[in-house]
Amino acid sequence: MKLPAALLDTLHTTFGADACSTHEAERLAYAYDNSRRHALPDAVVFAQEHAQIEKLVQACREHRIPVIARGRGTNTTGATVPVEGGVVVSFERMNRILRIDPDNRFAIVEPGVLNGDLQRALAPHGFFWPPDPTSSPWCSIGGNLACNSAGPRTVKYGSPRENTLGLRAVAGTGEGFRCGTYTSKGATGYDFTRLLIGSEGTLALITEATLKLTPKPSGLRTLRAMYRDVSSAAHAVARIMAQPVTPCALEFIDDVALKLAHDHGGDSVPLAGAMLMIEVDGEPETLPSAVDAVSRAARGDGLEELRVAQTAEETQALWSARKALSPAQRTISPNKINEDVVVPVSRLPELVNGIRQLSHKHDVLIVTFGHAGNGNLHVNLLPRDEAERERAHACLAEVFALVIALQGTLSGEHGIGLVKREFMPLALAPSTLGLMRNVKQAFDPDGILNPGKLLP
Amino acid sequence: MKLPAALLDTLHTTFGADACSTHEAERLAYAYDNSRRHALPDAVVFAQEHAQIEKLVQACREHRIPVIARGRGTNTTGATVPVEGGVVVSFERMNRILRIDPDNRFAIVEPGVLNGDLQRALAPHGFFWPPDPTSSPWCSIGGNLACNSAGPRTVKYGSPRENTLGLRAVAGTGEGFRCGTYTSKGATGYDFTRLLIGSEGTLALITEATLKLTPKPSGLRTLRAMYRDVSSAAHAVARIMAQPVTPCALEFIDDVALKLAHDHGGDSVPLAGAMLMIEVDGEPETLPSAVDAVSRAARGDGLEELRVAQTAEETQALWSARKALSPAQRTISPNKINEDVVVPVSRLPELVNGIRQLSHKHDVLIVTFGHAGNGNLHVNLLPRDEAERERAHACLAEVFALVIALQGTLSGEHGIGLVKREFMPLALAPSTLGLMRNVKQAFDPDGILNPGKLLP
Repeated sequence: MKLPAALLDTLHTTFGADACSTHEAERLAYAYDNSRRHALPDAVVFAQEHAQIEKLVQACREHRIPVIARGRGTNTTGATVPVEGGVVVSFERMNRILRIDPDNRFAIVEPGVLNGDLQRALAPHGFFWPPDPTSSPWCSIGGNLACNSAGPRTVKYGSPRENTLGLRAVAGTGEGFRCGTYTSKGATGYDFTRLLIGSEGTLALITEATLKLTPKPSGLRTLRAMYRDVSSAAHAVARIMAQPVTPCALEFIDDVALKLAHDHGGDSVPLAGAMLMIEVDGEPETLPSAVDAVSRAARGDGLEELRVAQTAEETQALWSARKALSPAQRTISPNKINEDVVVPVSRLPELVNGIRQLSHKHDVLIVTFGHAGNGNLHVNLLPRDEAERERAHACLAEVFALVIALQGTLSGEHGIGLVKREFMPLALAPSTLGLMRNVKQAFDPDGILNPGKLLP
Repeated sequence: MKLPAALLDTLHTTFGADACSTHEAERLAYAYDNSRRHALPDAVVFAQEHAQIEKLVQACREHRIPVIARGRGTNTTGATVPVEGGVVVSFERMNRILRIDPDNRFAIVEPGVLNGDLQRALAPHGFFWPPDPTSSPWCSIGGNLACNSAGPRTVKYGSPRENTLGLRAVAGTGEGFRCGTYTSKGATGYDFTRLLIGSEGTLALITEATLKLTPKPSGLRTLRAMYRDVSSAAHAVARIMAQPVTPCALEFIDDVALKLAHDHGGDSVPLAGAMLMIEVDGEPETLPSAVDAVSRAARGDGLEELRVAQTAEETQALWSARKALSPAQRTISPNKINEDVVVPVSRLPELVNGIRQLSHKHDVLIVTFGHAGNGNLHVNLLPRDEAERERAHACLAEVFALVIALQGTLSGEHGIGLVKREFMPLALAPSTLGLMRNVKQAFDPDGILNPGKLLP
């Protein structure tokens, strides 16, 4: 697709020569994301203010040209790949923290602010923004909101949907609007804030966000529990979540993943049937009782070892297995299929055992680890060649079917994007999908916003 | 309006003779709610299962007859008053707790379950559902969800939007659908759960809810702080909210309200420039440090007395002023205008002082009290006769304008309903309202669900 000259003129006038490009090198750089899928956009623009986005969407709507919002492309689902061409609008230069207001527990940011930059700016005020998909140095707040990216702290502090008060955005109609509040409570009309969060740029482009801040607890304690098998670890997760002290991280690693990390990371990585990493935070004087409560719940049939880190070095050592896991997987399979299914916590044993059976059945290496406190497991299929890749795809469909049978859903925090939309009818009935299409139509009547994503 | 015979036939067949009425006595009983507005419905039906609601909405859609969902009518905004007639569907008999699942921290309920009945059923499991608009013995979960009713605990635990995982519902198209998850995390498509919560029955009728449960802390401590004036109390609120220990209640009462409660409730109610009631909860061993932290923040310029209850009796005594307030207001004005505006916490002094000036300007008695930790104040205008009622209405418009100028919004937890829809354009721009109308159209193309509510 070549863009109409009139549209190109508008792009140049609106964004300026240094923020608007149709050069192939630039287009290539914005053709892909962390999903490793790619498709060339026809142009790339770099936004710096809300008014530009209104003009962009209005012009693209007039010419029926796709508009794809992009933070830093760290998503794993192809949500920012311009599969139908069009204009990619990068928010990387629209990255000002507009206001930090500790008295009112909010910060107002532009979408291109990096998660890590925000956290650093908040720290002197004693606050943090809980969502962090463990990619804080590289991922943008706008991307976090678009994908409802959550991360390990969600078990205690919630996802972006629970940590955002209001938004400014531009709908597919080209109209700018505000939704939500500057207050921690609101019952004035429909909740568009949460509707836009997780909508992957298919309803509107977020141009400003009012984020709810949380006081940063000054203390943190780390525990590591090794179990005989995945089932006893999964039961421990349910026990931990059924008592009053909610950990701020409750991570699970299965035996296959431990073995992989051990082979890669050395003897400091323990071997066992399964491992839980548990963190509790709070004011220092509350931590001993919190550690006690969580330790009591972690104990039970199948516990082989429980260690509590006493120093920063010990904390680091306890996390070594988790840290070694990503590079270890990459050495085996550069084309890992990285899923993030979620089931009710009590169904974790069935999920882990079911995945094990599917791994054998399809002869594909699968490691499972992730945010067990939310029942959110990263199921990573590691095909080593083309034949395994084909088997992995067949296996994946059965993984999703298993998850749905266990009352779970396709994605806990990665979203749907391009790669999971074909599986949406497994998770959602035709009536729900039909209403989602109606809502898409309500915001984006010509279907120009991020076409080919989320909805099948 | 008289209902078409074919529709009446369908209602009789669907609900049965003992759950379907067109008698005037029955219609009168469902003509009003706690707003004291009223309008006769043409029929009342009592639902018992989801399938009936699908049939009801399909039949009413065919004949373009309004359908008004009703919990227990405790809302204050006229949200359940059938202003255009039609069929009121009461959920009071659809009141089963379908499942309590402590391992997965959720409960599945029908919409007619009373908030208090749910809390009682959860207690033996060590859990609670945080939203409680302080009317738990009479209000239904369905109503709580429809209005996003929150209450004092919201400051720590959030509103229904933060405490609901998924819903089953019937859209204005007559189609049943499910949205959300059984898991504490989800990124599978648009967030319809939060969109329906607070939509006041204008998008869909909720027939089942999966509620997120929270472990009930076993300890609670109550503090009462008296201040020289409203400004010093409001500054204390901001200090309390800027430190890490978030109270589970942080209630404000102004001097006018205290005087009123004192005149009505006797000398046990203290007099002062303003009062804060503060509660902290947690495991017993964490409470002393929490009380210390909150006390430190409560101290400052203008503090006149700080008391910590040591016994259940003392706790009761500390709450006496708050308890005496409602009956005291009723003796003055049976027609109080009960608003629940919300502003960022740091703007509370300006709000309270501004309201005082408006009270003088319009010569209308106003008391302000409420959930200060969220910046959510109940502004109660107490007109004593018809002339004052007219002045009160003029005053109210200026109260809302003040709130918007302070970056607040019309409602924190009561919603919009009938009585505040004329003020919606003060809070929301035409573009936002236009998109809300589009979404209404997406769910309810013929506009039969609770017409005349929420949107102006």
